[in-house]
Amino acid sequence: MTDDPPFSPALLPAGFVDLLTPDARTEAEGVATLMGVFASHGYDRVRPPLMEFEETLLAGSGATLADQSFRVMDPDTRKMMVLRPDITPQIARMAATRLGAAARPLRVSYAGACVVVVPAAAEESGRQIMQAGIELIGPDSPQADAEVISVGAEALALLGVPDVSFDLTMPPLVPALLEEAGISASVRPVLMRALDRKDAAAVAELGGAAAETLIALLRATGPADQALEQLAHISLPPRARVFSERLAATVKALRKTNPDLRLTVDPVEFRGWKYHTGVCVTVFAVGRAEELGRGGRYLSSDNEPACGVTFRPDVLFRTIPAAAPRPRVYLAPDADQQVAARLRAEGYATLGALPSGPSHGTDPEHNRAEALRLECGFLLSGATCTKLD
Amino acid sequence: MTDDPPFSPALLPAGFVDLLTPDARTEAEGVATLMGVFASHGYDRVRPPLMEFEETLLAGSGATLADQSFRVMDPDTRKMMVLRPDITPQIARMAATRLGAAARPLRVSYAGACVVVVPAAAEESGRQIMQAGIELIGPDSPQADAEVISVGAEALALLGVPDVSFDLTMPPLVPALLEEAGISASVRPVLMRALDRKDAAAVAELGGAAAETLIALLRATGPADQALEQLAHISLPPRARVFSERLAATVKALRKTNPDLRLTVDPVEFRGWKYHTGVCVTVFAVGRAEELGRGGRYLSSDNEPACGVTFRPDVLFRTIPAAAPRPRVYLAPDADQQVAARLRAEGYATLGALPSGPSHGTDPEHNRAEALRLECGFLLSGATCTKLD
Repeated sequence: MTDDPPFSPALLPAGFVDLLTPDARTEAEGVATLMGVFASHGYDRVRPPLMEFEETLLAGSGATLADQSFRVMDPDTRKMMVLRPDITPQIARMAATRLGAAARPLRVSYAGACVVVVPAAAEESGRQIMQAGIELIGPDSPQADAEVISVGAEALALLGVPDVSFDLTMPPLVPALLEEAGISASVRPVLMRALDRKDAAAVAELGGAAAETLIALLRATGPADQALEQLAHISLPPRARVFSERLAATVKALRKTNPDLRLTVDPVEFRGWKYHTGVCVTVFAVGRAEELGRGGRYLSSDNEPACGVTFRPDVLFRTIPAAAPRPRVYLAPDADQQVAARLRAEGYATLGALPSGPSHGTDPEHNRAEALRLECGFLLSGATCTKLD
Repeated sequence: MTDDPPFSPALLPAGFVDLLTPDARTEAEGVATLMGVFASHGYDRVRPPLMEFEETLLAGSGATLADQSFRVMDPDTRKMMVLRPDITPQIARMAATRLGAAARPLRVSYAGACVVVVPAAAEESGRQIMQAGIELIGPDSPQADAEVISVGAEALALLGVPDVSFDLTMPPLVPALLEEAGISASVRPVLMRALDRKDAAAVAELGGAAAETLIALLRATGPADQALEQLAHISLPPRARVFSERLAATVKALRKTNPDLRLTVDPVEFRGWKYHTGVCVTVFAVGRAEELGRGGRYLSSDNEPACGVTFRPDVLFRTIPAAAPRPRVYLAPDADQQVAARLRAEGYATLGALPSGPSHGTDPEHNRAEALRLECGFLLSGATCTKLD
């Protein structure tokens, strides 16, 4: 044992926080709003558990999450369980097992907490992260990619998140291009890092036969229509071209349903996309560093095509106005309980008087003082509700 | 490594489950209903984290939870963190720290998941348990005890939980009586077990000077009014009498606000009550073994008086009708998107057509078949919504 300083009971582990009112309520009501929009598009809610066996959760597309997962031993089976760092792999598991025989397209939604060992660099929000999202399992088409983004955009609009930007990428494009251009496997990681830094000089030096194409790709970024226009003029080998055309088709499908969406494209971006096989999206509020959400196309368990988008309610709630509090009414001891019930039904919060001394409840001035002390804007005595100022 | 049988990807650790629709939705909407009632009585929502340092969470009233807590090491500080097995100790911590200066009575509400190492014997619901509850911190009075039960009863009534029974106990009564009657410390545990089994013969044998009183107490159980009538006639030593009178006063306060509540009293029952210092309540649906909730009086951090009640949404949702599903509308490729949006706003779920082959969307019979396959009762083509049969 070391000589630790005295331990503060208020101390929480880094990355874990207490939310108070109104934040806790804003988050909960925000989740309810998101889930309502998802349900209105036929995404059925599921609730996978907080913990699973390591062997199932970290199989397949979950393997990339191994570093981010807290593990404990199940005393029953002596197998390792993980605290989920992400819900999407759980949905993939369910889609292949209990929902394996459900009709496709399979649309599911979910909301819940996850825990990661180390938070992503840009995130102030820590190691307990909230997720609320949708997965669309079965179809592999630009319309499916567009649907999840479109439903997500509708949910954010209803929440009132301002200045949302959907940044589209195609992570498998560059790897396909490097392979098709015959870039040697030993150079690829260095070249990928140079692309990640948008370092055109290094790309020119390392890119070999693909250098010119890669530099053109680096420039084909920005607002979607302009970036796709540039992308269309870049000559790509066959597999890379399929990815490029799919990106363009997804934007086209999205424009059809959401002509006013703020869309950007970066065909070279791949960072943070691990198990993804097609169009990916990162959602930002303009001017904020933290991601509001992300999603993309991947192979679900059993290699079934799937795409989805996951929002971070704990981040979202900081971009929207706090949930409006219920106006508070202090109930004097003689308050008419039927009137109090009616006030609650109308959206007020009623706070009952509780005995606190011999003068309890007999003195109107005492009731008024109690009401003000408890931040009540109204006082109900008998059947009379008075606004306090 | 042992020769394990092949591992099924569908296997979850014992006590963890996947909820599907409608269960997942019924649970989430049930939680929202509970939290709405709590808020309407001035209970402000807070959201403590899933994990805390062992030193804080298992201090004070949390100490009795040590056996039930999964632990992992925080790689940052090398201190042990626990996955919370219960939310109430977190509220006690918050009440003494960040909410230490907030006005009293402090009313807070919370909802979230907990994980216990071993589920309670009678519970089918496993190791991941949901909790949604309220805590009333500051006042120590029968009216405060009654308020949390009354608010809980209102929430269950609004949820539509049938035949709810509130079973009141006073866990510190018997220990006080045994001490006051001079029962030796070595006999007390055996005697307590006999009381727990309602074994009148053993109680008569072991009870010494308190035997007659204890047997009378064993009989003073059942519907509250009848039990309290009997309790009032039992002669008790001073401290035990204070507890007995407090139990009666709490029932009286509850009867005043909730005359029709189904209340039972068992002054001898103490099992499962660990850190409690006053009236406790267990909530059942008549005819079901599982508890719907429980609560009681305790000392919060800094020994501040507190009482609360916690419900188990995962248990509750099995006692109420499933959340009504949104009627489903299949959107043919030519569906009018404004009509679709209006249908969603009116409570329908609209499922967009997604390309699945060359015949996509041109054939009314294909659309109708797709709608039925996806369990849609309606088909929207153009601006025309048709009910399918």
